[in-house]
Amino acid sequence: MSGHLTVVGLGPGPNDWVTPAAQAAIENAEDLLGYIPYLNRIPERAEQTKHASDNREELARAGDALALAASGRRVVVVSGGDPGVFAMATAVCEAIDTGPQDWRQIDIRVEPGVTAMLAAAARVGAPLGHDFAVISLSDILKPWEVIEKRLRLTSEADLAIALYNPASKTRKEQIQRAFTVLAETRGLNVPVVLAKAVGRKDEEITVTTLGQTDTDQIDMRTLVIVGSSTTRTIARNGLPPLVYTDRFVKES
Amino acid sequence: MSGHLTVVGLGPGPNDWVTPAAQAAIENAEDLLGYIPYLNRIPERAEQTKHASDNREELARAGDALALAASGRRVVVVSGGDPGVFAMATAVCEAIDTGPQDWRQIDIRVEPGVTAMLAAAARVGAPLGHDFAVISLSDILKPWEVIEKRLRLTSEADLAIALYNPASKTRKEQIQRAFTVLAETRGLNVPVVLAKAVGRKDEEITVTTLGQTDTDQIDMRTLVIVGSSTTRTIARNGLPPLVYTDRFVKES
Repeated sequence: MSGHLTVVGLGPGPNDWVTPAAQAAIENAEDLLGYIPYLNRIPERAEQTKHASDNREELARAGDALALAASGRRVVVVSGGDPGVFAMATAVCEAIDTGPQDWRQIDIRVEPGVTAMLAAAARVGAPLGHDFAVISLSDILKPWEVIEKRLRLTSEADLAIALYNPASKTRKEQIQRAFTVLAETRGLNVPVVLAKAVGRKDEEITVTTLGQTDTDQIDMRTLVIVGSSTTRTIARNGLPPLVYTDRFVKES
Repeated sequence: MSGHLTVVGLGPGPNDWVTPAAQAAIENAEDLLGYIPYLNRIPERAEQTKHASDNREELARAGDALALAASGRRVVVVSGGDPGVFAMATAVCEAIDTGPQDWRQIDIRVEPGVTAMLAAAARVGAPLGHDFAVISLSDILKPWEVIEKRLRLTSEADLAIALYNPASKTRKEQIQRAFTVLAETRGLNVPVVLAKAVGRKDEEITVTTLGQTDTDQIDMRTLVIVGSSTTRTIARNGLPPLVYTDRFVKES
């Protein structure tokens, strides 16, 4: 089997957050598969074929990519952010795990990238500068009870928390319930960062607290960071505040 | 005040993991500050001054960088990996928080990058593809009791866990104690990934289990990923195994 499949991430925003390694893999591909807006970011090349699909079709897209690679093609699956964090590398592995045996012989590579939480954190300083947890609030793939348990325990562990998929058009109440759970352990005054469309033209960064957050402004394009007890906000005269998590923890 | 300070990350390994945005900031700097091996990766330019310092001097380096920026210079602090994850962006914020008031007026930027855990995960598939925690095992900055509590709670939350700073020349026992704590909750059979010097010429990737890990081979250049109960290993004939964390969780 001579096929190759590489999963790359475009980062959350501008092209200058795409690593040269990911860029080289894209340029070297015969076939490019991905969610439509990601593929639209890649210039057309005569010798390449783009296969666009809808957002909810990760596993089918992974299977299509593997079938193409198994036929001997040089295939790239294009993901947003980092392909290994709530993104396409997982779907590709799952498709291999449950698919035909010969897919296990394909040369699989994953190119790391900038995931949304790192870009969001960078915009305000270093809120993820010490121990943290990364949790998706989507209950499509896991029951809400699991999400709530994870929030409760990581909050008790006093980790800063990055929340992916905090809301969608039809799913607005999870973020409110999540904030209620987190407030029980860490109170209402810990810093909260809302990074909407980070790296895009319509980016909006809000620094607030758990108690002051207007959860109505959180949508599917928002990355939410909730600070730990050692996350601090630095007020600046005429400039946006900085937020960072102290490297030192004094007691348990 | 006309000074500017940007904190950038070089990623954990090769130059093609450095984002174009970080590269542009480096090229545009008048002064570059950083740990010696990171500065050594940057070509000499006649119009730039490099200020190298030792690894343990993060806060002093941050203060030097801020003082230079406050004097009107265009300064870049060079970090490894992503500058916001156990790296220099935190030290810069801490120095501003505790330093002279006029440092708060400096134009501060952080450029996100590829942190070691994302590169390590990419090498084996997608072990961080679902909810995970990120914990430093160094007890220089926090007591061991805090580390152990965090490990226990995140293990109970069934998160995959990326461990930074798992060991040093003088600190070998923490990783053993961490594994003992994690095994109590998740057993000995969950997958473990050891990524030593990821992205470097002497890179070594090991896929094993919590019970089978030889902790003696873990050093300060190793990034450790411990899987959750839903992390799976895919054996491949003649190829290294893949590791991924299932997107689906069925029960709490």
